[in-house]
Amino acid sequence: MRATVIHGPNDVRVEEVPDAALRRPADAVVRTVLACVCGSDLWAYRGVAAREKGQRIGHEFLGVVEEVGSEVRGFRAGDLVVAPFVWSDGVCEFCVEGLHTSCPHGGFWGEPGSDGGQGEAVRVPFADGTLVKLPAEVRSDERLLTAVLALSDVMSTGHHAAMSAGVRPGATVAVVGDGAVGLCGVLAARRLGAERIIALGRHESRTAIARTFGATDVVPARGAEAVAAVKELTGGSGAHAVLEAVGTEESMRTAISITRDGGSVGYVGVPHGGSAGVDIQQMFNRNVAVRGGVAPARHYIPALLADVLGGVIDPSPVFDRTVELAGVPEGYKAMDAREALKVKITF
Amino acid sequence: MRATVIHGPNDVRVEEVPDAALRRPADAVVRTVLACVCGSDLWAYRGVAAREKGQRIGHEFLGVVEEVGSEVRGFRAGDLVVAPFVWSDGVCEFCVEGLHTSCPHGGFWGEPGSDGGQGEAVRVPFADGTLVKLPAEVRSDERLLTAVLALSDVMSTGHHAAMSAGVRPGATVAVVGDGAVGLCGVLAARRLGAERIIALGRHESRTAIARTFGATDVVPARGAEAVAAVKELTGGSGAHAVLEAVGTEESMRTAISITRDGGSVGYVGVPHGGSAGVDIQQMFNRNVAVRGGVAPARHYIPALLADVLGGVIDPSPVFDRTVELAGVPEGYKAMDAREALKVKITF
Repeated sequence: MRATVIHGPNDVRVEEVPDAALRRPADAVVRTVLACVCGSDLWAYRGVAAREKGQRIGHEFLGVVEEVGSEVRGFRAGDLVVAPFVWSDGVCEFCVEGLHTSCPHGGFWGEPGSDGGQGEAVRVPFADGTLVKLPAEVRSDERLLTAVLALSDVMSTGHHAAMSAGVRPGATVAVVGDGAVGLCGVLAARRLGAERIIALGRHESRTAIARTFGATDVVPARGAEAVAAVKELTGGSGAHAVLEAVGTEESMRTAISITRDGGSVGYVGVPHGGSAGVDIQQMFNRNVAVRGGVAPARHYIPALLADVLGGVIDPSPVFDRTVELAGVPEGYKAMDAREALKVKITF
Repeated sequence: MRATVIHGPNDVRVEEVPDAALRRPADAVVRTVLACVCGSDLWAYRGVAAREKGQRIGHEFLGVVEEVGSEVRGFRAGDLVVAPFVWSDGVCEFCVEGLHTSCPHGGFWGEPGSDGGQGEAVRVPFADGTLVKLPAEVRSDERLLTAVLALSDVMSTGHHAAMSAGVRPGATVAVVGDGAVGLCGVLAARRLGAERIIALGRHESRTAIARTFGATDVVPARGAEAVAAVKELTGGSGAHAVLEAVGTEESMRTAISITRDGGSVGYVGVPHGGSAGVDIQQMFNRNVAVRGGVAPARHYIPALLADVLGGVIDPSPVFDRTVELAGVPEGYKAMDAREALKVKITF
């Protein structure tokens, strides 16, 4: 089969690799229908996050079950399914509590020895604990299928930011970052009942999506200017809940600074600035909390899926370009150059 | 009147100062009955926290109202009262929400221009928003009066750590630090229903108090050894809620490391190690939250007072030495040398 492989910085290729195949009785093999490129894939693409040469890449996909191992109970060949960006056994204490990302048997698509999401098929460990079944009719609805694909990571991650920040009905929320996760964070905040949503971002095509997702205000500034602008919009106080969806030192510093005393930063940007942006003295004096991390997408997907299917939320506009598998390297290039927000891959 | 004044590192003196007197209509003057020395006073004593030469010091006291301004409604001369370690107006949005420490009209006893708590009397700004009335009969019960004094800071602060860490009935809790705040954190965790409480501390006289306060386990190690010990006690997972009551880089690092995935560090140790102990990458991967800060004691006192008066909690054992006002410099010396845990001052 063909799949995307990363050979080094700026070097992803679509190559012939061994076919995805059952290895353990709890495995399933899923034939990919849709996949996509994540902002976090760019950290590897840019050489910031280390990868072994020849490692697979991609962690967001949905598809059709092709084959299941002898222990799989919940799925059979032909089922349409979406996968969260980590697999998990579904039965450990963390999975039961809803923190599937801490499952001791869990793993991340594309880690050495596993298939990545940007390929024709994927071996799914612990299929019963990992996959979520979709209504068969979704298959024929391209828009809906694309919206569901977002649950694999970006929509679940934006929701995790909103949950971690404690967004409540009536809250004033600020979202740092206008990437796909930040935009989904806006959508999640609106879904949770936020009254005012301030989106921080400088790319007009993206902040336009933020407005359709529920942003009431847009702040195109950065750093101290952004802090001043949010303070002004909030009567000097800042936002009750701030979603940090970038992961740099500056973005975390901004997020903490614009949080109202007693409020929380819900952070989901993969940290790439050390802890320097976490100003513990400012947090202490103002009782600002920092909470979040890698999103337990598997925990969130059922509830979010219901709202996607019910038309309550539609994250599909975060995908603004579509490529076929052969076009994945071009897709990375376009996202790296910020010419594309999020690239969908069709099979 | 006489009050404690800090002239520089290791130099606190009891001196004649201007009498506490009403300045504004919302003020009260309180004649001190009991006060004490705080572990956080030692940061100033050691020269780590800057103070102006000649600044007052001390922020924990209870006493009898001597005089009230024309706008004071809730108190009159003769009332027995306890003060939280910051004053607050009681009517702003933050006070109404219970975050009195963020009151825009608030302040800290001993800050330039204000009286400190370690003196014969204290001018209390915004008396109605600051003071809490005590039943008159408490005055004659030395043990109870001492227990109530702890609400001024250490018991409320330990409770804030427990609340910030999200202690729930049945939880496994770890407390980093065996100072008065850490010990009160143990007591607060037990009060909130923690099932298992692991106290980290090396001073046997203190961990003995921790056990009487509800600690089920004591870990005398530090750093990596302490982390390993807590992990072993918790089946490898760590504690659901960790109370950080020290404020150094090492203590924060330990606190985050012993928190179970998805759990929270409730931190109240005044930060004196920058943000270096806050390992954002570890927090991210394991969804560990950091929440806390300066405790809104005024918000917590009514509920805690009810439990002190009702005999549910008794924090008075954290006071292990008593001095008269003239003995305050000796009290600082004893706490600095760790010969005393917490020094009570009688008037």
